[in-house]
Amino acid sequence: MNHKELIAGLAEKMGLSKLEVTSLLDATIDTFYEELGEGKTIGIQSFGNFEVRKKEERLSVHPATQVRTLVPPKLVLNFKQSSILKDKLKDTPRNEK
Amino acid sequence: MNHKELIAGLAEKMGLSKLEVTSLLDATIDTFYEELGEGKTIGIQSFGNFEVRKKEERLSVHPATQVRTLVPPKLVLNFKQSSILKDKLKDTPRNEK
Repeated sequence: MNHKELIAGLAEKMGLSKLEVTSLLDATIDTFYEELGEGKTIGIQSFGNFEVRKKEERLSVHPATQVRTLVPPKLVLNFKQSSILKDKLKDTPRNEK
Repeated sequence: MNHKELIAGLAEKMGLSKLEVTSLLDATIDTFYEELGEGKTIGIQSFGNFEVRKKEERLSVHPATQVRTLVPPKLVLNFKQSSILKDKLKDTPRNEK
């Protein structure tokens, strides 16, 4: 489900136009950017937590040439699922495989 | 920012009541559950992709007792940030530390 399909699906479910859903989704993502940009965690009930974590710099060695490169530190958005989501996923048919 | 603060923030930004935002957020999470439950990936432009991944069963050894336990396979919701989000985070003050 890509961005376009998500908007169409939400519009149908919410009884709103795609344009309205788009602006709602944009406002949500804006809020996420603002919060995460300040290093704050975002918790969504029954879904999970978003948190920015810093990955420290590290030395990478090229397997073939043995050339060492310093990989600079970077910020990564980490998602930790809630226990409710975990339980929901457990019941999905995919788990039977 | 917890669930309640997120709803208050979104309500203010969108010019909607908290009740309206709550039902919108619930509908969004419902859609996520449905899609992810079917093993589908969800892509949100300029944010990232959500994908359910199966973690295989593994043998865990207790460090002190050496007792081996089989950890059953489980489904985990994985989030991969988009390159746009990556760039945005790069510019946050937190990266200067």
